[in-house]
Amino acid sequence: MKKSGATHSDLDDKTIALIDSIAGEVRDSIEHGTLPDLKLPVRSLDNVTYDEAKGYFELGDARKVRSLTVNTARAFAQTLRLMATSRTMVEHDDFATKREVYYISKNWGDCRFDEQAESDAIMDDIEGMASMHGLSREQLRFYPETHGGSVAGRLTVVDKNPATDATIEIDCANLGSGAYSIPRSAEHLSFRTDAQFVLAIETGGMFQRLNNHRFWERARCIIVEMGGVPTRATRRFIRLLSDKQNLPVYCFVDCDPYGFTNIYRTLKVGSGNAAHINRFLCVPQARFLGVTPQDIIDFGLEDATHKLEATDIKRAEDALQNDPFIIAHPEWIAAIKQLLKMGVRAEQQALAKWGLNFVIDEYLPRKLANTGGFLP
Amino acid sequence: MKKSGATHSDLDDKTIALIDSIAGEVRDSIEHGTLPDLKLPVRSLDNVTYDEAKGYFELGDARKVRSLTVNTARAFAQTLRLMATSRTMVEHDDFATKREVYYISKNWGDCRFDEQAESDAIMDDIEGMASMHGLSREQLRFYPETHGGSVAGRLTVVDKNPATDATIEIDCANLGSGAYSIPRSAEHLSFRTDAQFVLAIETGGMFQRLNNHRFWERARCIIVEMGGVPTRATRRFIRLLSDKQNLPVYCFVDCDPYGFTNIYRTLKVGSGNAAHINRFLCVPQARFLGVTPQDIIDFGLEDATHKLEATDIKRAEDALQNDPFIIAHPEWIAAIKQLLKMGVRAEQQALAKWGLNFVIDEYLPRKLANTGGFLP
Repeated sequence: MKKSGATHSDLDDKTIALIDSIAGEVRDSIEHGTLPDLKLPVRSLDNVTYDEAKGYFELGDARKVRSLTVNTARAFAQTLRLMATSRTMVEHDDFATKREVYYISKNWGDCRFDEQAESDAIMDDIEGMASMHGLSREQLRFYPETHGGSVAGRLTVVDKNPATDATIEIDCANLGSGAYSIPRSAEHLSFRTDAQFVLAIETGGMFQRLNNHRFWERARCIIVEMGGVPTRATRRFIRLLSDKQNLPVYCFVDCDPYGFTNIYRTLKVGSGNAAHINRFLCVPQARFLGVTPQDIIDFGLEDATHKLEATDIKRAEDALQNDPFIIAHPEWIAAIKQLLKMGVRAEQQALAKWGLNFVIDEYLPRKLANTGGFLP
Repeated sequence: MKKSGATHSDLDDKTIALIDSIAGEVRDSIEHGTLPDLKLPVRSLDNVTYDEAKGYFELGDARKVRSLTVNTARAFAQTLRLMATSRTMVEHDDFATKREVYYISKNWGDCRFDEQAESDAIMDDIEGMASMHGLSREQLRFYPETHGGSVAGRLTVVDKNPATDATIEIDCANLGSGAYSIPRSAEHLSFRTDAQFVLAIETGGMFQRLNNHRFWERARCIIVEMGGVPTRATRRFIRLLSDKQNLPVYCFVDCDPYGFTNIYRTLKVGSGNAAHINRFLCVPQARFLGVTPQDIIDFGLEDATHKLEATDIKRAEDALQNDPFIIAHPEWIAAIKQLLKMGVRAEQQALAKWGLNFVIDEYLPRKLANTGGFLP
């Protein structure tokens, strides 16, 4: 039931003030005998823009208004109760996952949620409202269900004991064959590092290889396991780390349309259907180390490739036609066209063809010698 | 290219001796002008037994013989090459994931694998051979693709710096809101702890709640996140921790047939289709804390349940009829019949109905006061 450090508390105050102000307007309307309403951003792909300078998919100006009517009474009440839940959690320094939020409502009588889809949608609405004021879901104390990936390397994470507020330091160079598991919320963390970059890795297997051989020691870096498309927790952690320490982020993923447009694109600019939170989660400073279509040729991986499937081709063609991020970058258009022409895809593990540690001894050093050549 | 500590090295010597002995027999046959063959355990459900005293699904005595013929020449050669790969990795203290093993073969000319399914099957055969001699996949240096879950609490993990062999200690009570991520292989780890039990938790959300509120501090325990059905790495870690420190393991999972027969049953006795490795991975000392069908009544969760789906009912009925572990335990038969009669399932998060921290303040303390009542 304690409050945390100064910065955190400022954001907490801002969150409570926002909730109080929205609730106050509703009450004023009622007291003046008018029907209250709530203004919510429209959360759909139609209402998304991509500004290269900003570097992320951003929510547009479209708003929907939820007025209190017979039909909306239940959703209206649920929205207000969820806002009250959020306020209580901020006050008590607690948090809830989406699933827990759904269950909390089981004590709300007639306005209980019947399905989690209902509570998720209203949570997204509240998140959207908060994002218009620069507040993320984590500040509302709604935490993602899944934690982040693993971290190792030249990094000390500075956290605190939640019971005593005492500082806790985690030396990510001193976890042996294990790693640091990124918590659901990274807002309160700070960092110390002498690393020169962050290497974000698609697969757990490759992360384990680089960690066990302490690649991060000689390459002076921090390695982060994304485990496929990075979770919100992983994206936020990388973003905060990169922002606070002014570190470039290099991505090492499979050479296929999924790796380019789902894993890398989501890390860098966010996803289309969560535009109201991309500003907090995207990593605009990310660049694509590889594996690139040209790498397949340069590193002789032709016979360790797989033919592009119909879904790969469809995804690539969709990206060329519809993905604002790809369309904005001629280098990506060229790379995807090259991949389509070659008709194959390659996984990062394909480098094992030349020996298990070819990736450490040859591939990564050669690539890192020319970071200017990374795809944007 | 160094070797690790004493125990580890003994197992390494045993692994190399086994590979040499099998390869030697093959060479002897060839030199004597007879066709060589390899004896492999049959890996199928027909060849599985459950012995309650041993506590895990065990491979039976059935063997298949892979003789060298025109038809088997390729698979025979691939088996020998994979054994040679394993031998090299033991010598160089390296490892490979299943995916990497597949790619390594790309340099093997005519006996390269066309699909990973081929290399997986042969790896399983070699694993089966090794298991007959008490050696696990990890000792062959074939590591699982996925790492383990997260760990926090009253535990110090003792690892070593792979480059220098210097001891590394990780204090899992001092990782703040983060956690220790279990590595792919735990064979070389040792432990120090004053905990009284290990709490294995199904969901990441519940793990995060117990970790952020430092439940493990007052309950004197170690908490482990399984994240659904526990990975091999998680199961092996819990097994080694429990064995070496003589700690009971309590499982906290959802109250549904999947939680009972997939998550808990897999942790405790292993899985039917991987019987050749269950002896290394199962945790026979595990017991089921909850959520039990009776808990739904005792803790007033009736209105926070979901109706059993057809797949739940089928899974429960299958377990009652065919699962040797369930059939061996009248308490489990009674619990599953009770669940079927109630017609509902409950998630561990359902306890949030009584407040987010009801699970910490009420549920777990009440359950832990009567560990003798846990399901077997």
